[in-house]
Amino acid sequence: MTPNIAAAKAALSHLDIETSAAAVKAKSRDFFWYSPVLKARLDNVMADFVVSPRTEADIIEILKTCYTHDVPVTTRGSGTGNYGQAMPLAGGCILHLRHMAEVKEVHPGRVIVEPGCLLKDLDAACQAHSGQEIRMFSSTWATATIGGFIAGGSGGVGSCTWGSLRDLGNIIRLRVVTMEAEPRVLELRGDDLARVSHAYGTNGIITELEMPLAPAYDWVQMFVATDDFYDAAALAEDLANEDGILIKLATVFEAPIAKDFFQRVAPYVTQDTHLVALMVAPHSMDGFETFLRRRPAAKVIYRSDTAEWARKPGLVFEYGWNHTTLRALKVDPSITYLQVRYGGTAQIKLIEEMRDALSPEVLQHLEVMREAGKVVFAGLSLVKFTTEERLDEIIRMHEEAGAMVFNPHRYTLEEGGRQTVDDRQLAFKKEADPKGLLNPGKMISWDVPDWDYTRMYSYAKIREVGRS
Amino acid sequence: MTPNIAAAKAALSHLDIETSAAAVKAKSRDFFWYSPVLKARLDNVMADFVVSPRTEADIIEILKTCYTHDVPVTTRGSGTGNYGQAMPLAGGCILHLRHMAEVKEVHPGRVIVEPGCLLKDLDAACQAHSGQEIRMFSSTWATATIGGFIAGGSGGVGSCTWGSLRDLGNIIRLRVVTMEAEPRVLELRGDDLARVSHAYGTNGIITELEMPLAPAYDWVQMFVATDDFYDAAALAEDLANEDGILIKLATVFEAPIAKDFFQRVAPYVTQDTHLVALMVAPHSMDGFETFLRRRPAAKVIYRSDTAEWARKPGLVFEYGWNHTTLRALKVDPSITYLQVRYGGTAQIKLIEEMRDALSPEVLQHLEVMREAGKVVFAGLSLVKFTTEERLDEIIRMHEEAGAMVFNPHRYTLEEGGRQTVDDRQLAFKKEADPKGLLNPGKMISWDVPDWDYTRMYSYAKIREVGRS
Repeated sequence: MTPNIAAAKAALSHLDIETSAAAVKAKSRDFFWYSPVLKARLDNVMADFVVSPRTEADIIEILKTCYTHDVPVTTRGSGTGNYGQAMPLAGGCILHLRHMAEVKEVHPGRVIVEPGCLLKDLDAACQAHSGQEIRMFSSTWATATIGGFIAGGSGGVGSCTWGSLRDLGNIIRLRVVTMEAEPRVLELRGDDLARVSHAYGTNGIITELEMPLAPAYDWVQMFVATDDFYDAAALAEDLANEDGILIKLATVFEAPIAKDFFQRVAPYVTQDTHLVALMVAPHSMDGFETFLRRRPAAKVIYRSDTAEWARKPGLVFEYGWNHTTLRALKVDPSITYLQVRYGGTAQIKLIEEMRDALSPEVLQHLEVMREAGKVVFAGLSLVKFTTEERLDEIIRMHEEAGAMVFNPHRYTLEEGGRQTVDDRQLAFKKEADPKGLLNPGKMISWDVPDWDYTRMYSYAKIREVGRS
Repeated sequence: MTPNIAAAKAALSHLDIETSAAAVKAKSRDFFWYSPVLKARLDNVMADFVVSPRTEADIIEILKTCYTHDVPVTTRGSGTGNYGQAMPLAGGCILHLRHMAEVKEVHPGRVIVEPGCLLKDLDAACQAHSGQEIRMFSSTWATATIGGFIAGGSGGVGSCTWGSLRDLGNIIRLRVVTMEAEPRVLELRGDDLARVSHAYGTNGIITELEMPLAPAYDWVQMFVATDDFYDAAALAEDLANEDGILIKLATVFEAPIAKDFFQRVAPYVTQDTHLVALMVAPHSMDGFETFLRRRPAAKVIYRSDTAEWARKPGLVFEYGWNHTTLRALKVDPSITYLQVRYGGTAQIKLIEEMRDALSPEVLQHLEVMREAGKVVFAGLSLVKFTTEERLDEIIRMHEEAGAMVFNPHRYTLEEGGRQTVDDRQLAFKKEADPKGLLNPGKMISWDVPDWDYTRMYSYAKIREVGRS
């Protein structure tokens, strides 16, 4: 099965297609470089051409054409994922959804939108229509697309209240086109959503999304400082457990993350300051202030509605989730990160164990989430990277202590997830992408069904620049 | 200290004042008769006159006048409380707030309102203004006032998501007038709210409230039937733990409550049907249906948006909370109830223990609530009343098993609560009502500071009709 790139390009030449090396190279990359492991392996990956459809009919034509000519198709929104989700490992076609950005309908509690809409633009449209916003978003809100978030993300700002994208109710409907001789258009709801959400576009292309909305408030964004790390963690956890105080973000940063990596915050903290970033609904601020008065060890150092900082810090959520890592590695390029799931009643003990064993090589960055109705911590720990062996050892230490690690130094769905086959996604790929042309190399169970996860998977057909 | 009723009436005669025995008797009663214990003791309680202020200035004048003439003042909204909250034990003045019902301001996430506004009217105003509604309300929504709910209630429909009224953030601000020679007007926020919320008007009169709002949705109201009680309980609890499915009500009724007491539901159930009443946001219905498909033992027998019942059941929440008791005692006047707090990880075991020991003398009616971030069950168990001794024994059985009972067969704050003095409320009464004229007999710690709770408190100065 050799792709006929030239034939596909010719057939699609009436569409918005880019073929110059510079343009194709730029759109063949995402934020994989957060990981030194992925950077070492994927830096020269490059597609053959980029095509940007304007309609679902265009997508159907592109998929049909690429199917005919055996051309791999890797779909991207803005390319802000950092698991290499949008990296075209086998070259071929980049399906770029930037033109499909229409907000089609807004209703009380839900919106219908095209996949290429920026999260920021989607929120602006919902706010303007009826004072609503999406329940959760990645910290890349300003630049990422809703389709990319659903296909490549798992939760984010808002997950402290609403849980994860995979939770029932957090996606209502996805409209999907298959990669077949005659592409089909499917409407997925309920249990079927799990086939294609967080599947990196390996088994269908999302052309329309229906998402639940929450009221949009003028969230009060804050930084709260403590001298003790566990005071900061307890504040975030306890606040999330206050049923009457509505929050959208509760993030904990171990010292000296704030001092070393948050440039505009640094003047207001010391090397020993642990920081909590919060977004609280304005009508919950009275309740929050009462909550805070019971914790004299915690000091609000920044409030977006009243602060007089000479240089404002910008959006507080742009310090949390994966932006923490981004800010850290801009200052210290040797920083990378882990994604850890703590949870359970002993989660603070587990965090303490990791901190005692690994700080400051590993600095705690905790995000409050809800899981099955309970408040839990997700860790996006900052790691001072030395070698891949040491990184693997750090991951092993977490796993042996009882924390689950979603390894962000792997580009496959399985290794970045629970290291098991997702039968629903695999079954749907067999049905919707029989030639295996969608985002090749990202689903191990498709390539090597009996893979045993004892070492890092390496896709056999990686196509690097100059080797095509 | 003998009240000079005649002087007070004369001084207030320019206001809306009622003095006819029939009118005064009617407004001297609340829903105390839910309890056979309270009915036996309070049935002949009666005030001397009723005055209905139109403004805060009127209230100040009334309190000042009654203070001067040593006249007790018991405040009421609609009188739908069932702990005897609004019963004027010592006679005197009924302060009826029906004219003070203005919705003053609506903002994103909050409303400012006068105390006499009906919950229903408040919701209608917030809905019309900006698609909002109050976070929680009593099942007497159609007839009760917001002031009465705050002064006499603790939570209700919506508490499955937002917790209780006492939780931080669920009341923003209360404006209160004191009962002194020169009444003061105080604005209470934060920790100070606990002084007067759920204090039955014993230590100040609320003249304005600022309450948080949530988005108003066209909630899908449902009845779900199961053959097994624990399937019903698990459904309610698990649904409340689905972070992405927004609900406003989850209520469990042990069989044969639905068959015996819910007239319009009865044709669709049997004596063995356990029932769950739900309110789910319309944009969460896809998620809910997916959730329900995993529970084949549960059948939706009514959906407000699609049902074709010949006789519609009305609002589903009017089957829950204290309306369950109301419907039961309309059918069987010997029914009364308990208020039980289960909670904790072993709550189902505790419920099972009570059910094994007491069903069908005590039938389980469970309401899902949130408490400190966790889903818990509140029990408003139906009790087939025989004697006061047996009722006390049933309460003791619950307490010995580890369930806390808020005894609804008592008219004092302490006995209906945690059987301890609320120091904040007592201290505020000393400051705001130095003569002890506000709703006399409802705060034991004011009357008898060393009360030991070994028997039911009986206010010494109860004034019954014909004894004045």
